[in-house]
Amino acid sequence: MTRKRPSSNRPFILVSNDDGIDSPGILALARSLARIGEVVVVAPSTQQSAVGHAITVQVPLRTHRFYRNGKMFGWAVDGTPADCVKLAVLSLLDRKPDLVVSGINHGMNTAINIIYSGTVSAATEGSILGIPSIAVSLATHDTTADLGTAALFARKLAREVLRRGLPPGTLLNVNIPNVPRGEIAGVKVTEQGRSWWDDGFERRIDPQGREYYWLVGTYKRDQNRNCDDYALRKNFISITPLHYRLTDSGLLREMNDWNVERLW
Amino acid sequence: MTRKRPSSNRPFILVSNDDGIDSPGILALARSLARIGEVVVVAPSTQQSAVGHAITVQVPLRTHRFYRNGKMFGWAVDGTPADCVKLAVLSLLDRKPDLVVSGINHGMNTAINIIYSGTVSAATEGSILGIPSIAVSLATHDTTADLGTAALFARKLAREVLRRGLPPGTLLNVNIPNVPRGEIAGVKVTEQGRSWWDDGFERRIDPQGREYYWLVGTYKRDQNRNCDDYALRKNFISITPLHYRLTDSGLLREMNDWNVERLW
Repeated sequence: MTRKRPSSNRPFILVSNDDGIDSPGILALARSLARIGEVVVVAPSTQQSAVGHAITVQVPLRTHRFYRNGKMFGWAVDGTPADCVKLAVLSLLDRKPDLVVSGINHGMNTAINIIYSGTVSAATEGSILGIPSIAVSLATHDTTADLGTAALFARKLAREVLRRGLPPGTLLNVNIPNVPRGEIAGVKVTEQGRSWWDDGFERRIDPQGREYYWLVGTYKRDQNRNCDDYALRKNFISITPLHYRLTDSGLLREMNDWNVERLW
Repeated sequence: MTRKRPSSNRPFILVSNDDGIDSPGILALARSLARIGEVVVVAPSTQQSAVGHAITVQVPLRTHRFYRNGKMFGWAVDGTPADCVKLAVLSLLDRKPDLVVSGINHGMNTAINIIYSGTVSAATEGSILGIPSIAVSLATHDTTADLGTAALFARKLAREVLRRGLPPGTLLNVNIPNVPRGEIAGVKVTEQGRSWWDDGFERRIDPQGREYYWLVGTYKRDQNRNCDDYALRKNFISITPLHYRLTDSGLLREMNDWNVERLW
């Protein structure tokens, strides 16, 4: 395999996603970022929505070159978004990227959705590997939606992050409202919302008489003005800084009174 | 499908895992918890290691009854650990469980491993659904290891959590050292460690001349005395309280100086 080597001293940017390497979102993102850096695309060969932070450990990973219009566009990996970033950084690429950008996802990744998101997971893996990382999502599942605003803003923010860096173990989760460019109200730094899914399962019977279940749900939006979902609803671009230090310090303090020693 | 109905007023406990419904770990856990409550098992039909917080949205879920020694042991779900808990709570069970316990996993789930862990993910889904939840892992991949200590401690902690409850959106992540019962040093409430994987990929060529990659890595342990990995190494049972509020407040404050408005 020929290894990807950056051909200049421009910033070296790894682009991935969870919608798959053939999605319109990753094409718009790669094209936009190519204006400010050397872009390499390493992305799942197939759609990987809601994979969370899965990695492949039971089977080996395979890669193949993915072409668009007869030109190599990137590496397709038979794996998850986190696999793609891990494999790119630790094996496929000759040097460490200066930035990881994941997206452009079709569908917002706000509030509780963040922990199910493959798009965010690719950026999380970047941050785990010590690389400033950004996840970019457009708030619509319409795959014919205009990606221009998202691609443009991703580039502006990428330039800013390349200049400033990010603290270790953090990443930026960006959500773009699906409205015409002129209707974007601005940009807000937000908190992860506490919106939640009022979920259920629809039980159906297949032609052979066997049951199966579809997940169905209604999204209950957090009305807090500082949160990601509120910003989106008001047509603001939302940037949420995230980390993966999961210790609940409040409960940890409280548990000092539990006398856990006594449990053994 | 007949729905599972608790036959008494004892605590109603949902048990799941990521190693699959046929694993020795879930059997030991279910048997131990059956001494303090009504247990129902809903678990993946196959091994789901390192699936992170994946859920199934592209295809429907299927369930089937899983038997041990001619008796129904639980429901097997063709899905992830998070799917199992979601489906159990929202559809299979007639009432909300009082507690979700996931495990006993073969292999520790500490530090960075937490975000890849299917075992933790099942408990996370329980906490998302408003149910006190516990993940239990034994620090060995040896599937013939003695599960007695882990099963006993899981029961003791389950009883305590049933009595005290847990704050909304939190869960307890428990790791048990793989040593004889007499060598357990005690129990510690810990922080998620900052241990990390020095990972790489081993590139191989298959008999058809095509490349494939295996993930390989060395675990670099956090030496902080308050962390999960340190407790385990000193033969303490480790309990880490976790949450999924991922906003990085430090970076959020810092970003107030970025003037992000200017980026649009």
